Amino acid sequence: MSFNTFGHLFRFTTWGESHGPALGATVDGCPPGIALDEAFIQQFLDRRKPGTSKHTTQRKEADEVRILSGVFEGKTTGTPIQLMIENTDQRSKDYGEIAQAFRPGHADIAYHLKYGIRDYRGGGRSSARETAARVAAGGVAQAVLRDLVPGLRITGYMTQMGALHLDRDKFDASEILNNPFFLPDASAVPAWEDYLTGIRKAQDSVGAAIEVLIEGCPAGLGAPIYAKLDTALAAAMMSINAVKGVEIGEGMGAAALTGTENADEIIMGNDGPVFLSNHAGGILGGISTGQDIVVRFSVKPTSSILTPRRTINQKGEEIELITKGRHDPCVGIRAVPIAEAMAACVILDHLLLDRAQTGGQRGHIGG
Amino acid sequence: MSFNTFGHLFRFTTWGESHGPALGATVDGCPPGIALDEAFIQQFLDRRKPGTSKHTTQRKEADEVRILSGVFEGKTTGTPIQLMIENTDQRSKDYGEIAQAFRPGHADIAYHLKYGIRDYRGGGRSSARETAARVAAGGVAQAVLRDLVPGLRITGYMTQMGALHLDRDKFDASEILNNPFFLPDASAVPAWEDYLTGIRKAQDSVGAAIEVLIEGCPAGLGAPIYAKLDTALAAAMMSINAVKGVEIGEGMGAAALTGTENADEIIMGNDGPVFLSNHAGGILGGISTGQDIVVRFSVKPTSSILTPRRTINQKGEEIELITKGRHDPCVGIRAVPIAEAMAACVILDHLLLDRAQTGGQRGHIGG
Amino acid sequence: MSFNTFGHLFRFTTWGESHGPALGATVDGCPPGIALDEAFIQQFLDRRKPGTSKHTTQRKEADEVRILSGVFEGKTTGTPIQLMIENTDQRSKDYGEIAQAFRPGHADIAYHLKYGIRDYRGGGRSSARETAARVAAGGVAQAVLRDLVPGLRITGYMTQMGALHLDRDKFDASEILNNPFFLPDASAVPAWEDYLTGIRKAQDSVGAAIEVLIEGCPAGLGAPIYAKLDTALAAAMMSINAVKGVEIGEGMGAAALTGTENADEIIMGNDGPVFLSNHAGGILGGISTGQDIVVRFSVKPTSSILTPRRTINQKGEEIELITKGRHDPCVGIRAVPIAEAMAACVILDHLLLDRAQTGGQRGHIGG
Amino acid sequence: MSFNTFGHLFRFTTWGESHGPALGATVDGCPPGIALDEAFIQQFLDRRKPGTSKHTTQRKEADEVRILSGVFEGKTTGTPIQLMIENTDQRSKDYGEIAQAFRPGHADIAYHLKYGIRDYRGGGRSSARETAARVAAGGVAQAVLRDLVPGLRITGYMTQMGALHLDRDKFDASEILNNPFFLPDASAVPAWEDYLTGIRKAQDSVGAAIEVLIEGCPAGLGAPIYAKLDTALAAAMMSINAVKGVEIGEGMGAAALTGTENADEIIMGNDGPVFLSNHAGGILGGISTGQDIVVRFSVKPTSSILTPRRTINQKGEEIELITKGRHDPCVGIRAVPIAEAMAACVILDHLLLDRAQTGGQRGHIGG
Repeated sequence: MSFNTFGHLFRFTTWGESHGPALGATVDGCPPGIALDEAFIQQFLDRRKPGTSKHTTQRKEADEVRILSGVFEGKTTGTPIQLMIENTDQRSKDYGEIAQAFRPGHADIAYHLKYGIRDYRGGGRSSARETAARVAAGGVAQAVLRDLVPGLRITGYMTQMGALHLDRDKFDASEILNNPFFLPDASAVPAWEDYLTGIRKAQDSVGAAIEVLIEGCPAGLGAPIYAKLDTALAAAMMSINAVKGVEIGEGMGAAALTGTENADEIIMGNDGPVFLSNHAGGILGGISTGQDIVVRFSVKPTSSILTPRRTINQKGEEIELITKGRHDPCVGIRAVPIAEAMAACVILDHLLLDRAQTGGQRGHIGG
Repeated sequence: MSFNTFGHLFRFTTWGESHGPALGATVDGCPPGIALDEAFIQQFLDRRKPGTSKHTTQRKEADEVRILSGVFEGKTTGTPIQLMIENTDQRSKDYGEIAQAFRPGHADIAYHLKYGIRDYRGGGRSSARETAARVAAGGVAQAVLRDLVPGLRITGYMTQMGALHLDRDKFDASEILNNPFFLPDASAVPAWEDYLTGIRKAQDSVGAAIEVLIEGCPAGLGAPIYAKLDTALAAAMMSINAVKGVEIGEGMGAAALTGTENADEIIMGNDGPVFLSNHAGGILGGISTGQDIVVRFSVKPTSSILTPRRTINQKGEEIELITKGRHDPCVGIRAVPIAEAMAACVILDHLLLDRAQTGGQRGHIGG
Repeated sequence: MSFNTFGHLFRFTTWGESHGPALGATVDGCPPGIALDEAFIQQFLDRRKPGTSKHTTQRKEADEVRILSGVFEGKTTGTPIQLMIENTDQRSKDYGEIAQAFRPGHADIAYHLKYGIRDYRGGGRSSARETAARVAAGGVAQAVLRDLVPGLRITGYMTQMGALHLDRDKFDASEILNNPFFLPDASAVPAWEDYLTGIRKAQDSVGAAIEVLIEGCPAGLGAPIYAKLDTALAAAMMSINAVKGVEIGEGMGAAALTGTENADEIIMGNDGPVFLSNHAGGILGGISTGQDIVVRFSVKPTSSILTPRRTINQKGEEIELITKGRHDPCVGIRAVPIAEAMAACVILDHLLLDRAQTGGQRGHIGG
Repeated sequence: MSFNTFGHLFRFTTWGESHGPALGATVDGCPPGIALDEAFIQQFLDRRKPGTSKHTTQRKEADEVRILSGVFEGKTTGTPIQLMIENTDQRSKDYGEIAQAFRPGHADIAYHLKYGIRDYRGGGRSSARETAARVAAGGVAQAVLRDLVPGLRITGYMTQMGALHLDRDKFDASEILNNPFFLPDASAVPAWEDYLTGIRKAQDSVGAAIEVLIEGCPAGLGAPIYAKLDTALAAAMMSINAVKGVEIGEGMGAAALTGTENADEIIMGNDGPVFLSNHAGGILGGISTGQDIVVRFSVKPTSSILTPRRTINQKGEEIELITKGRHDPCVGIRAVPIAEAMAACVILDHLLLDRAQTGGQRGHIGG
């Protein structure tokens, strides 16, 4: 089956192919009475859109979103919100050879095996262009969260690109939007630029790691056992193209810790419990604790590269393939706003789930 | 909301608390006509059950499963299968202090904040005892898969425990069930025993990493975009108690690779495509390719330890807490059969999803 | 696929066969902190249970419910509630011939065609015994509604049995539980008793119509377009064994009305809008208006009768069949508490859905 | 919550308001490799579209559907199919008074109470214009069914309009598309025309009853207990605007029957079981038997009428309201193609569900 819907109560269904006339997201379950317009959503799309620096694909897409339904006189009505983005810079001629051949490391062969048919133009449905629709849906979630949880802040940034790692001692969130890498360290930007330019000139691509920090998330979100908040975040991130690993808090590193090291001790602050560390990444038993939520994921290198690789075509012939066209040398860069959008959708969905079951009331701690 | 159901078409709902009269799984969507009895399911439960070595909790539970519905004259009927396991060795007196205090790193505080009420006995619903129900459900999935995909083999094993790592050069799958660590290397068992004994004697606990290898999985499973096979596996593993990270194939390591390194080149074998490497972990674009599927996850150290930690109680008082009771020094060990069960459920669910949409037919490669 | 789960947020999965060891309901999504015990649920089961008068099956089942999970110290915890009812009076020997033959008008043949296997004992899964589990689940819903919507009242009663119709001028709700027919007219009971005794002695059975009146339901429940409140109620009632028609308000009679007749005019009362009639049955556009909700449905006559009917067996042989065993001469009678249970579950489910999306806030009417 | 999605595996989400820029359906779960183009879908839309006779609304909408995704080189790809219909003849000025007033019998007041905001233009989301999107989705289902179940035929027609009833002795399916009433009796058309003209001239509207006949449906479709085929059909029909009652086979009339009358006796034909009658309407135990499936439903009269009715406005003032604008005198007429579309979607959805669980294999009857 095809499941193109994400979320339980705040749910969106994305549709569209890389080189079709348009793509979009059908957003259902949005609370009514929330201020929303295209400009608000557009700011998120602009962060993700291609062609903004030499470090992303040179495809020029305005990625202009239109709201076709669900908003009346500047407010959501509680009915489905259709967000449409027209494709304007398709260049299908770039895809002559790909029509019959399978790029190594790409979804081409898997789609062919499953469906027996695929829109090969630009990767069709498996293209990262689908993520524009998610970012638009995430914009709706952000508008609702701004209203329902004013203190919430969702911030994505890169922590690794190939051999380069973020120096956490230099972390400065205010720098993230000032460079093409969503890097929270201005001093490292030149080195990252040189590195990626080198990769691109070597006709290669490179992987990346991204972190999303969610501050101000209320306690109590998460629906154990099988819709835990960390499960939902893991699924959200893993659903992004090219993602191969997801971590919450200590992540894979938790395997090396002892219980005494890993215990996030608790003291009592003025406004409630205060945790002395955050190995847990803000989630215990699948439920948010009110601490910062920390999610991290890896993105594999773009599989469409100019370096020749051995593969086969649909006829079963062995060939060497070079993928021309306009591809991101590090597809992980644009995963940053996508991940923020997914995080926003997950948090809102669980906020609605929680207020359904508990009415949003919290257990009391104190005298 | 509470979502205690896993799966789309082959779906199970687990129920029950650590110290209640019983727990179990309600399995829905099982194909009819499949041979199934309690003994078949019991073999999987026996691998997970506590008290089998000094390296797991000393709680003695027979974990005997009863099939209460959905099976008639030794075969499934296509109606819901109720699997019940009675709790027999609850010792609620162990939990006097825990009733009011929150163990650092444990779900106690999160459940209290969300629900305002919690069955504190043994962790109640957040206890790893819930996983017995999953393993039982996984047994049903295994029975169906044995029938529908005879060549499929799902194998879990530990790859790390704290400071110790599996030496992959010594990998021997036939050793996995011969030691208390599900370790595929007999030569390392003494060192692992000494290490864990040391941890336990230090009144501490330790984390772990587990890998699940799925061999013989048909190509074409996975429902892009939001029910991708890797998304489903990530969600399945992340839903297991104490899991903090999940990886497919290269996992977090993909961030360090270049596109030329990461491309799994393809040649044409006698029976179809042959991949020359498996960085992808058997999944491309969220769809299985027919290669081995490789999933890895980390488990944090048990939070219930005998070493005192700072925390608070429900009244908001700051205390030092020692958790008595019978706890696993490395809860990751018993995660192995749990992960196998979850993997079996995911594969079966996606097999049914695929045959719904495509009729199980595969796209052709070749002349 | 098998879908044995009802509801979106307050959801229950029923399991069990007529002659298996037990049956029950796994209830998920129940709000926490609600007072609940077995006695509260039992009162609803007692209304449905067989063998209470000569007008229902003579099978003697105590229908005693056990709560196996999800309730702690007398209150719900927000985790799944397992409700189990053991079968105690199975008499499988009654079903010798039915094992191979298909009762006309019964699900026997349909289950055989679909699944290729069926638990023929007492109709197995298709037996009305399944409804005991729903009534138990409905008891949980009633407990929650008592807490969340104190003024809500759900009342079922018979309006027709074969040739006999309720005289609405004599409607007296206080009489409903005083006779074996859930009939709101004491004066008609003797005639109904004679009629049904006649049917039974003629080795026949008879159909019925039931109405459920929901008073005090808040406005705003219902999730257009495809989870409208009337859609949910229709699905709920149609899912009950032997139901062949469902009506809201005017029901099928609406086909004969003109717009001027059908318009429920509105005036302004002290507490808000007052409707001068209720052709709509309390629901407009799929959303409750605050008026009384009126649902009606028909139940076909029991298909298991002592009068011989032509049919075939599994070998394809034509036979004449008499169904011995203990069957209800009018299965519609016991549908009354079942329908109340389903209505309670629907209302609660939509209450939770509504507070998720709107926070339970209502649009204002007035100066 | 807002649930604008219909179906389990073949699922569509409709979006759009009566007077917004466009409306449509996002169809997910469509099998791949099915021939599909806009012309095929358009034929179904043309039957429903307004303005084709004096007996429907005079709003002129071309109702031209565009396929924006999911179809490649004339075939479905298994990815979401976006169907968009632009609104071209909105006349919002017609709705001055309605903006603040609530039409009696209309969803206006319910939407206001629930959401606190509504797009009042033409009824916004509650308008029957939404059904254009369903008919488009139904066209996709019809394309798939044509391929998977060649013998299937779904036929809708009117059986009642106010005081007029179809004479079943004159039933002639070939006449259905030859008159503006979808009436299977040419001889009655003049009387129906006169009757409806009279209603319209009296500034009134009238109710209707519609029947859908499904011939050639395979046995075995339906997912007991809570996704029975009749439950799904009842939900599908009840979700259509203005529907107040749904019947399967004997429907509400089953309440008057005895068991001997109601039993559909079975004999053995050359190709399997043959039923001697069809009181059941083709469904037993929620599962299709291979007989013709018969569904019937009532549609209330259009609530927007020119005859003044008492009501209130948003300020709580009592007023008399006349609804101007372009409205159907009998909204039931256009419900015919809508019901066919819903039936097609239900059958396909259950066909996919069935092949997921049983692989589409049927239990054997015979030697």
